[in-house]
Amino acid sequence: MKTLLKNGTVINVFTGKCEKKNILINDDTIIGVGAYTDSEADIVEDISGKFVCPGFIDAHMHIESTMLTPSELAKVCIPHGTTAIIADPHEIANVCGTNGIDYMLEASEGIPLSVYIMLPSCVPATNFDESGAVLTAKDLLPYYSHKRVLGLAEVMDYPGVISGESSILEKIKDARMQNAPIDGHAPLLSGKALDKYISAGIQTDHECSSFDEAAERIEKGQWVMIRQGTAAQNLEGLIDLFDEPYCRRCVLVTDDRHAHDLIKDGQIDNIIRTAVKMGKSVITGIQMATVQAAQCFGLKHIGAVAPSYFADLLILNDLESIDIKDVYFRGKKIESNKIQVPTIHRKLLDSVLNSVNVDRLSAHDFYIEPKSDRCRIIKTIPQQLITDEEIANVDWNINNGINVKRDILKIAVIERHKHTGHIGLGFISGIGLKEGAICSSVSHDSHNIIVIGTNDDDMAAAVNHIIKLGGGICAVRNGNITADIPLPIGGLMSNADANEVVRQNKAFDEELQAMGIPHAAAPLMTMSFVSLAVIPNIKITTKGLIDVNNQKIISLYTN
Amino acid sequence: MKTLLKNGTVINVFTGKCEKKNILINDDTIIGVGAYTDSEADIVEDISGKFVCPGFIDAHMHIESTMLTPSELAKVCIPHGTTAIIADPHEIANVCGTNGIDYMLEASEGIPLSVYIMLPSCVPATNFDESGAVLTAKDLLPYYSHKRVLGLAEVMDYPGVISGESSILEKIKDARMQNAPIDGHAPLLSGKALDKYISAGIQTDHECSSFDEAAERIEKGQWVMIRQGTAAQNLEGLIDLFDEPYCRRCVLVTDDRHAHDLIKDGQIDNIIRTAVKMGKSVITGIQMATVQAAQCFGLKHIGAVAPSYFADLLILNDLESIDIKDVYFRGKKIESNKIQVPTIHRKLLDSVLNSVNVDRLSAHDFYIEPKSDRCRIIKTIPQQLITDEEIANVDWNINNGINVKRDILKIAVIERHKHTGHIGLGFISGIGLKEGAICSSVSHDSHNIIVIGTNDDDMAAAVNHIIKLGGGICAVRNGNITADIPLPIGGLMSNADANEVVRQNKAFDEELQAMGIPHAAAPLMTMSFVSLAVIPNIKITTKGLIDVNNQKIISLYTN
Repeated sequence: MKTLLKNGTVINVFTGKCEKKNILINDDTIIGVGAYTDSEADIVEDISGKFVCPGFIDAHMHIESTMLTPSELAKVCIPHGTTAIIADPHEIANVCGTNGIDYMLEASEGIPLSVYIMLPSCVPATNFDESGAVLTAKDLLPYYSHKRVLGLAEVMDYPGVISGESSILEKIKDARMQNAPIDGHAPLLSGKALDKYISAGIQTDHECSSFDEAAERIEKGQWVMIRQGTAAQNLEGLIDLFDEPYCRRCVLVTDDRHAHDLIKDGQIDNIIRTAVKMGKSVITGIQMATVQAAQCFGLKHIGAVAPSYFADLLILNDLESIDIKDVYFRGKKIESNKIQVPTIHRKLLDSVLNSVNVDRLSAHDFYIEPKSDRCRIIKTIPQQLITDEEIANVDWNINNGINVKRDILKIAVIERHKHTGHIGLGFISGIGLKEGAICSSVSHDSHNIIVIGTNDDDMAAAVNHIIKLGGGICAVRNGNITADIPLPIGGLMSNADANEVVRQNKAFDEELQAMGIPHAAAPLMTMSFVSLAVIPNIKITTKGLIDVNNQKIISLYTN
Repeated sequence: MKTLLKNGTVINVFTGKCEKKNILINDDTIIGVGAYTDSEADIVEDISGKFVCPGFIDAHMHIESTMLTPSELAKVCIPHGTTAIIADPHEIANVCGTNGIDYMLEASEGIPLSVYIMLPSCVPATNFDESGAVLTAKDLLPYYSHKRVLGLAEVMDYPGVISGESSILEKIKDARMQNAPIDGHAPLLSGKALDKYISAGIQTDHECSSFDEAAERIEKGQWVMIRQGTAAQNLEGLIDLFDEPYCRRCVLVTDDRHAHDLIKDGQIDNIIRTAVKMGKSVITGIQMATVQAAQCFGLKHIGAVAPSYFADLLILNDLESIDIKDVYFRGKKIESNKIQVPTIHRKLLDSVLNSVNVDRLSAHDFYIEPKSDRCRIIKTIPQQLITDEEIANVDWNINNGINVKRDILKIAVIERHKHTGHIGLGFISGIGLKEGAICSSVSHDSHNIIVIGTNDDDMAAAVNHIIKLGGGICAVRNGNITADIPLPIGGLMSNADANEVVRQNKAFDEELQAMGIPHAAAPLMTMSFVSLAVIPNIKITTKGLIDVNNQKIISLYTN
């Protein structure tokens, strides 16, 4: 079946030029760009006045952060012109191990969005937590033969690389043996430490926040991924990377962007649009998002409007504003509302659907022994992932130490993978909850159940609801479930459609405000990172409080 | 073992900038570029006032054209800054099949020159000839697992690709399944035919001779290889490719360059130097020859002076003239006269050393039946590969039709691979030989023995000498061998050192002049291509005269 797209202006990503040319497509592939005529095609589309550019590649993202399944995500991505994503299934791998990777591969098979997988390199992220799985080099190796597996995902364990830890170096060695790309993650690393990290063979980074940081990486041979996610937004700080010569070694990524942001603002289109508003070239943005991303990952037949390339194309009403009229994937115009859900093997689906392995709790499980009046409190900072240690006097006589007025709440992390019964308990400030409890099975990176509350009864009710849902997020007031987002897939992703997830999310946000939390705060994000013991300074896992900088478990009590 | 190169000015191929930086090397790999100090290294080299750039990559060449073995070639390449070549062993594969590829791989193992192999895609080049081997897709497939095999070499059979011939498409399909690069070879192809050719997945070309031809290819996604060989010299016609944006999709190649040209003028260094003399940027030239060539072939750790890259480095006295002081390969300064010959398995070596399988001939074997007085003569054009058909009256009474005065000489192609006894006989003009005979086992692409003579006795003596040598090139006058170049390896390559081959070559050229051939002519090249039945218009193989345009065997005799 041959399709002719005629009279459009084609963006040539190799030369940066725009020229009026006809495009001839045979099934899924572009077979000609030039003076082709109606008689050569079965279907003819006149796109006079429109522009044609290659579909965008989001070169690094975590699907789990959208809370959507891959096929639901496709419904959101496609209207915004993303036809390929390079995904790191790090979150579900922490919960379900290789089953998580298998699920992501099966759940993205045959959908009208190319989902390439980078293999999670750091599962678990730290030994101070209890994840659902450990992924060794041996576990990852067989995946390199899968046609949609490209390489090794962000090597977050930069201390391990620099100190020469064998477990991470083995994974890197395997990737290098396959000539596979290796993504980096090493915020603020520079000079000799950066050299050491790059020397291992790590050729990208998406954690740059300043031009100088990025320029050093480009000079040292890395590709820089300009990230604009929901929380981490680096475009403004990196905007000068859109100029020569640095622009030639950059690609665009969202990393972690919520579904409602994807729907409302877009994805890669949004990044390009924002850069254009800041005075940068739309062509440069498109080149970063297409041919350069493909080059960075060794993808030979996506990222250009040229013969032999897959017909993943965007028809634009307007170039500068990336106003997308239609999206073609593999030669077919995609109606995003008609995207089908792939069939997943029952056994595999079951393995990701039953990831919450905890017995029901009672209020008593949250009781903290009053061993000392002075305690370490985790002090959170709005919209930041870093926490501080706060030493406070705790009045044990009222509410087992919780003091809503002073914003000292209780926090617990409940191991949910192996039925160990482990619970880490502590106090937290900076959240602003005035009543009830909030609870989630999304808590980086091990994704145990995390709950913050103003009283033990509501905390227990919240955890029990999450157990009942088989994973999710909920709010409880006075024993009643007041809002929830069921996330049955690994306790991380919804099986509802994108609009429903956004609706649930919005209702949840409203409930959070009703519970006393300021509008601008992002308490779910703050809560979900309070358990990540690789970000300074004080965190909590199933093992209790962790002093991140000294990498040790510390007591709740102090003098 | 750590080496510090300090105080040099480093060419950064990612940014195009030159900066004074120290380079720290650990064994074979660069581990840092920056403020490293003497105390961090075991060996310190002060290169104040010098420039450092990555070693050059010759992105497409045929080693056989140099008549040198890979290790002898390394002695010639290294002083000119070439540290990697991407070789198509097409000639030896036509003679020895997979043994030829195996020989090239073994003979280049461990030498201080990275020899990457592209798998010959068109063996034999045509069915109108008798080659030593046929390489099918099935023969090539196992080679993709070799770490120095990159992809599929120049797909010369563009008519086959365009018409959808399964044998060539199968080889292309296999390469694509491996995500391997596929080189093209399609001179003057343009428009829809070019689209069709590229659509197969062929992403480079080295046959462009004009800017417009090259620009079309770049716009259609191909990498253009700017070729400057001994015969085919395209740099002048393509010089504007050194400007933006086209320069970003170009690499530099020599394709076929003789040993004496490599020694005298250089290789990639010579191309850059010439471009600079024509007013182009030396940095752009270096980028084409390093990072871009690496990118084109998916080579992740050569082509830049940056952490994780192999320490293949050039120390330059002067940048603009590419005046090379020292060459480092894998962190070691190479003394080219000390390069060792790799050990080759006896059985493999024997298989390429005994490639001439012909019984001795006598003058009578060259006798042509006088069936008609009007014959087709192959009319050669000095320094061109194209021939014309000339119809001439032949006087059979004197010298069996040979007429030195009228420059009508005899030509014969003797099958040498399978002992078939096949001989193609004909007449040739334009060579200018006044006495004796010249003979060679280098005759494209099947490399049967080809001989041109003024009398049958000298022709027989010449062929018998080549048989005795087991391959080579020789000149005979009055029954005496007056010059020769023994080429025992596949009848294509010498086992002598580079200087000896050049000396033999020079002596041979002098003898050719003594035999009456004008100085400017290149009779050996002309002769070696008279048998290639894919170049217009009339050629000769072991099967007799070939009408190339109509792809059929034709009679010597006409009316």
